[in-house]
Amino acid sequence: MLAVKIAEGQVRVVDVAPPRRREGFALVRLRCGGICNTDIELLRGYYGFSGIAGHEFVGEVIEASNKRLQGRRVVGEINLACGKCPWCARGLGRHCPRRSVLGIVKHPGAFREIIDLPEANLHTVPNHVPDEHAVFTEPVAAACEILEQVKIPSGAKVAVLGDGKLGLLIAQVLALHGAEVEQFGRHRSKLKVSQALGIRTRLAGAKPPNGRFPFVVEATGSADGLKQAVAMAQPRGTVILKSTVQGDVSMDTAPVVVNELTLVGSRCGRFQPALRLIASGRLKLDGMISACFPLSMAAEAFEKAVQPGVIKVLMTASAR
Amino acid sequence: MLAVKIAEGQVRVVDVAPPRRREGFALVRLRCGGICNTDIELLRGYYGFSGIAGHEFVGEVIEASNKRLQGRRVVGEINLACGKCPWCARGLGRHCPRRSVLGIVKHPGAFREIIDLPEANLHTVPNHVPDEHAVFTEPVAAACEILEQVKIPSGAKVAVLGDGKLGLLIAQVLALHGAEVEQFGRHRSKLKVSQALGIRTRLAGAKPPNGRFPFVVEATGSADGLKQAVAMAQPRGTVILKSTVQGDVSMDTAPVVVNELTLVGSRCGRFQPALRLIASGRLKLDGMISACFPLSMAAEAFEKAVQPGVIKVLMTASAR
Repeated sequence: MLAVKIAEGQVRVVDVAPPRRREGFALVRLRCGGICNTDIELLRGYYGFSGIAGHEFVGEVIEASNKRLQGRRVVGEINLACGKCPWCARGLGRHCPRRSVLGIVKHPGAFREIIDLPEANLHTVPNHVPDEHAVFTEPVAAACEILEQVKIPSGAKVAVLGDGKLGLLIAQVLALHGAEVEQFGRHRSKLKVSQALGIRTRLAGAKPPNGRFPFVVEATGSADGLKQAVAMAQPRGTVILKSTVQGDVSMDTAPVVVNELTLVGSRCGRFQPALRLIASGRLKLDGMISACFPLSMAAEAFEKAVQPGVIKVLMTASAR
Repeated sequence: MLAVKIAEGQVRVVDVAPPRRREGFALVRLRCGGICNTDIELLRGYYGFSGIAGHEFVGEVIEASNKRLQGRRVVGEINLACGKCPWCARGLGRHCPRRSVLGIVKHPGAFREIIDLPEANLHTVPNHVPDEHAVFTEPVAAACEILEQVKIPSGAKVAVLGDGKLGLLIAQVLALHGAEVEQFGRHRSKLKVSQALGIRTRLAGAKPPNGRFPFVVEATGSADGLKQAVAMAQPRGTVILKSTVQGDVSMDTAPVVVNELTLVGSRCGRFQPALRLIASGRLKLDGMISACFPLSMAAEAFEKAVQPGVIKVLMTASAR
């Protein structure tokens, strides 16, 4: 079967043996996958990654112990937890110290024709939700995670820094939650997605407004973002960190201490609320899809994904 | 009157005119002042400071509108707030954007024979509390502030990084609160203060234990401390930042995001709970005083304060 391998900065489509089903696992035929910024960071050397990439997908179950899953369209949580440790007991398998992570840590990713994942990780997709929306479940869950971690009152002013894939979803999710979102980005074309939803946007200039926001979400994906986010937060404000960047980031901690800011690292979230939100049709996802390639053209898909102005690039299984 | 001036890395004792009392202000004759790490940072150029330093003091009111203050021994909150803005209305004058700060921002410090401060900033010291304890009110309030900002359950494991003045007070305050404190420092002699109180201490080696603490307090006063604190926190853990260091600090934000850590900047706190704690006699403060100089020997006092192994250096008014 085809699989997309990332190694030494190269994207290659390779032929590999399909996975064999283990106890508790299902085999899922890929229908559609999405390229995430993390995939691009992995390609650049983040985590010293080498292997089959991909963690955003929707597929069809072709083999499972749970017969109710058989033939169903599913999305899958990306953390493979041990199920036995105190973290798992608290429902926080996402932090299980023995976890592997689909396409990121010690488990082959979703950019392959057949994916193996624990059945417990799978969520069936309602029939009326198209693949091109369901494939956003993982990043929408990451956006929703902010609201699980931080209490943002309705009507609160929130600055979202970054107009990439995740930044756009965060702006939507927080605006739907009732926050007064102001999004700062560098791409007029990307910010249009948010503008179409009535979200106030600003092209990030050299001098962002300082000390004005009770909440700032840093989703620029760049090392400079944190410094700017800290400067924009008001005293006792909260800065939510969403960017995973490789290597050290420099920041002035004095305003963090003097203004008693709270910085909250935020990663992946639960799939169920995200899937519900997508199924409600309240998110506008079509405007975020820039291109779609067959899996066999993964190299071209990744090339497209890093071009300026491009938002989400999808890949579909060739045999679809 | 004598005053201690910091400018261009120099400590000088100068003769200045005593302050004239303004409406709402009291004049306070210095009895005892304490040198804080922030004073030493100011001497090194933090905040581009130049002027009369000092913000830890106990004194005697010699002139006030409020006759009940007259002649009383007092300590003073260091933030001079406007009293009218939304921050002040919320009781957070410590974050008033128009505030000046005693000995730090636009208000001459406490290292002078007569200090002027708003009467609203003053708290009377119970008779049984000696000057040498009352002078710790400001740093004890800074330690107590952690508990106002972060809910630390009784019995929770807390790592305190740093065995300086503030680190030692934080370890005591958190241990009295019921936390299971483990303190990491570089000075055997300083850690003895905590050991004497039954606090577990460890000489910080090259490799601190990673990912084990739900709470980590960074009070090293050094730029490396944050990186180490982040590494020691367990997933979903909280890192409290207490060090104000000059300039940029570098850190790897990936563990903050991946482990969904919360970083909380923490500065000064309310005086009342701190004064109550000091008055209760439960804090052991005598072991923290390394030396005492008259105000006229401020240069020697500062020299002493930066020597290895030295904890708190006090200065007393010469005419006491």
